[in-house]
Amino acid sequence: MARTAGSHSALTAPRIRAAAQSLFARHGFAAVSMRQIAAEVGVQVGALYNYTPDKQSLLFDLMVDHLDDLMRALDAEPLPEDPMQALEGFARFHIRHHAARPEAVFIAYMELRNLSPENFAQVEALRHRYEDRLTAILTRGQAEGQFRIGDPRITTMAIIAMLTGVNTWFRETGRLRLDEVETMYWDMTRQLVGG
Amino acid sequence: MARTAGSHSALTAPRIRAAAQSLFARHGFAAVSMRQIAAEVGVQVGALYNYTPDKQSLLFDLMVDHLDDLMRALDAEPLPEDPMQALEGFARFHIRHHAARPEAVFIAYMELRNLSPENFAQVEALRHRYEDRLTAILTRGQAEGQFRIGDPRITTMAIIAMLTGVNTWFRETGRLRLDEVETMYWDMTRQLVGG
Repeated sequence: MARTAGSHSALTAPRIRAAAQSLFARHGFAAVSMRQIAAEVGVQVGALYNYTPDKQSLLFDLMVDHLDDLMRALDAEPLPEDPMQALEGFARFHIRHHAARPEAVFIAYMELRNLSPENFAQVEALRHRYEDRLTAILTRGQAEGQFRIGDPRITTMAIIAMLTGVNTWFRETGRLRLDEVETMYWDMTRQLVGG
Repeated sequence: MARTAGSHSALTAPRIRAAAQSLFARHGFAAVSMRQIAAEVGVQVGALYNYTPDKQSLLFDLMVDHLDDLMRALDAEPLPEDPMQALEGFARFHIRHHAARPEAVFIAYMELRNLSPENFAQVEALRHRYEDRLTAILTRGQAEGQFRIGDPRITTMAIIAMLTGVNTWFRETGRLRLDEVETMYWDMTRQLVGG
């Protein structure tokens, strides 16, 4: 996505993404300047423009990377055919993947307002592709009579909000381990679909 | 909370809050200046300091007002004794109250990072007071054998995240009316607690 130039490009592009992500998460996209991002990376602001045309592109690339990464990771864990087992796999995957990336998740939800309309439409399409996977599981489980649910799309939105909410309170140093949290949220998800 | 001065104070203080809320929600707290808030209200920036000592106080006041308002509104709808009926009342109240205040809700979740440590602690205490109401309902329902749940505190966090999530997708102009959404989310909440 970013243009590269010079011999350090392989090293610098990921560092620019990482610096932008950390600054956007801490201060918000609108409050961060290209100058601050350059300072965080340790390059001149001019050098930044070898990698990205502007701050909007940086934000867009972060969100697209986050959602591409999410789909790739989901595809790397093939879910069982059985809808209930597939739902369990999805729920546990979602919690684990999101808990490991609090900054990217925070930005992906909070900075949608700062995307240009065209970029917003592309990010929404990628997000829908992910949500569609859960909707497909719910629709199959409903058709096969395993799930007692209403509208599979609304159920998708409810389950994803519930699972992503772990990020608002879970701390590695807290009283619960992440695998315990996964199991608690899976129990709630199973009951939510009537299982 | 805000200091008042001059004959227009009753009119201007709410207008300053409204302007700050709208600008914070649109651009993020860190990107908005006192000068912008003054311009939005239509006063000189100096006049703003008759009402609030600084931007941090404005943010804190907005969050405290939001949470005080939430508790007052909840108290105004006494919930039934029966845990299942109380849970239904709480779930429907939560969706209705939050859907009507998208900007305040967005700020209350997103700008926690920008509160000073002392202000953060006070806001968290107010939020816990609200969450405690749901935890109390869940604990009672579990003790009376009506609810099949694990840790009532974790269940509280899960239900609140799920219900607040309505704000991320619900639009007045969409295919569903809010009372229909309320009923769908109540059905999911009921099943989530094993009812």
